[in-house]
Amino acid sequence: MDSMAPIGVFDSGIGGLTVLRALLQQLPGEDFVYLGDTARVPYGTKSANTVIKYSMNNLEFLERQRVKMVVVACNTASAYALPALGELSPVPVVGVVEPGALEAIRFSRTQTIGVIGTRGTIKSRAYERAIHALAPEVHVMGWPCPLFVPLAEEGFVDGEIPRSVVLHYLGALARAEPQIDTLLLACTHYPLLYDLLDHMANAIFDAPVTTVDSATAVAREVSTVLDETHSGCDRKEGGQVDYFVTDLTRFEEIGERFLGQPISGVQQVDI
Amino acid sequence: MDSMAPIGVFDSGIGGLTVLRALLQQLPGEDFVYLGDTARVPYGTKSANTVIKYSMNNLEFLERQRVKMVVVACNTASAYALPALGELSPVPVVGVVEPGALEAIRFSRTQTIGVIGTRGTIKSRAYERAIHALAPEVHVMGWPCPLFVPLAEEGFVDGEIPRSVVLHYLGALARAEPQIDTLLLACTHYPLLYDLLDHMANAIFDAPVTTVDSATAVAREVSTVLDETHSGCDRKEGGQVDYFVTDLTRFEEIGERFLGQPISGVQQVDI
Repeated sequence: MDSMAPIGVFDSGIGGLTVLRALLQQLPGEDFVYLGDTARVPYGTKSANTVIKYSMNNLEFLERQRVKMVVVACNTASAYALPALGELSPVPVVGVVEPGALEAIRFSRTQTIGVIGTRGTIKSRAYERAIHALAPEVHVMGWPCPLFVPLAEEGFVDGEIPRSVVLHYLGALARAEPQIDTLLLACTHYPLLYDLLDHMANAIFDAPVTTVDSATAVAREVSTVLDETHSGCDRKEGGQVDYFVTDLTRFEEIGERFLGQPISGVQQVDI
Repeated sequence: MDSMAPIGVFDSGIGGLTVLRALLQQLPGEDFVYLGDTARVPYGTKSANTVIKYSMNNLEFLERQRVKMVVVACNTASAYALPALGELSPVPVVGVVEPGALEAIRFSRTQTIGVIGTRGTIKSRAYERAIHALAPEVHVMGWPCPLFVPLAEEGFVDGEIPRSVVLHYLGALARAEPQIDTLLLACTHYPLLYDLLDHMANAIFDAPVTTVDSATAVAREVSTVLDETHSGCDRKEGGQVDYFVTDLTRFEEIGERFLGQPISGVQQVDI
């Protein structure tokens, strides 16, 4: 494998930029190719077969960019399509589910983890399976919070509207038994609401709650796979990112909030 | 044209069911073929070229169903793709923009109309152009309200969350000058919020506001075109609806709230 080849990252749209942000911090010398399937976003409301078909298209595009690894920076695609992608891909494929599950298990003292995400991710029970494969005794509460994605995309991350929406979802989760002590953000959009979620969870639940964002865990997993396959880039800084989307729309404008830095040179592709 | 042929209706997803609801009330003897492009929903955040491409695919599918007319029950598709569809189609094509514009003009006494919809619809300025083509002196305030679609789909049509979101958008519109006296719902999802919007608009604005939903106007326009082309069905009741979607997902469950009656026999198609 060519150690100077880029790492491919795909998502249904802009959410995966929170994962790319963690990757750029962890691996500043690597080149990346980011693909956002913005013409077909969102995946979270679509069926498993459709998500698998779209994920295959994304993988094939990244392969044509000669990537050395593929990061599935989309929870719905990781939940539904990872086995199929792993079989098809000649290079390693890393999803967001297992690293996030492992991180949540590490933080939970009472072995009760709340998993919040889109309907698709929660319905797939992928996080529940991943957590139980590592720690069968953990109690998992899957909780769909479908309004968080539009809130994050529209920049409603603080104030009365997001507070009333967070209270609606987490309030219901807090009334369910048993009470969780760890809240796993199983959607790449949710890090934009991290501060609000962490603050409100600790106000709503009876005991302290740790809020876990899986992006950092994913970046560590990618670093480990690069080491194990001896395919890490020698450079320690100066990596570049090429951005591709299937529809231009507001990717640069919204994406900057997700990436935490300006985005330029985005190219539209038909995949 | 075969008067017994069905009328084709397409939308990016389920929103167009509010238009179908008005059509079923206006024309209970007609057969309909409804196509929801649920695999590629939403159109409102996508670029003009992408919306045109998808709309062409939808038109071609309906033509294969031998429809006698096509209703574009999607504001974004009507705004961007109607001229292209009109050129391509051998049968009449009716959009939602012109009938809605005409209805709003009829209701406005002060000639100040607020148009609320998705970013795509508002950015296209299609309603503004349609209103000005009919009444150049009318002042049009286009106002994107992107959170209303997820609220309607998630069933948040009353209570604290939708009230705070409506207050956010309409409050800002009320602070702009001049104040409107007519609020045109330029999105097929918004009729689910009709009561809340009408009630809150009349509380927020200084003078009374008339809230106009274009679905009824569209149904009347379809009826007129059928009369003009002598292609109306002779039956006065008992019309059937065939439902097609590009992705099954929660169409029946959510769709019932939009249509106001149960939906069954939905078929998935690859278009």
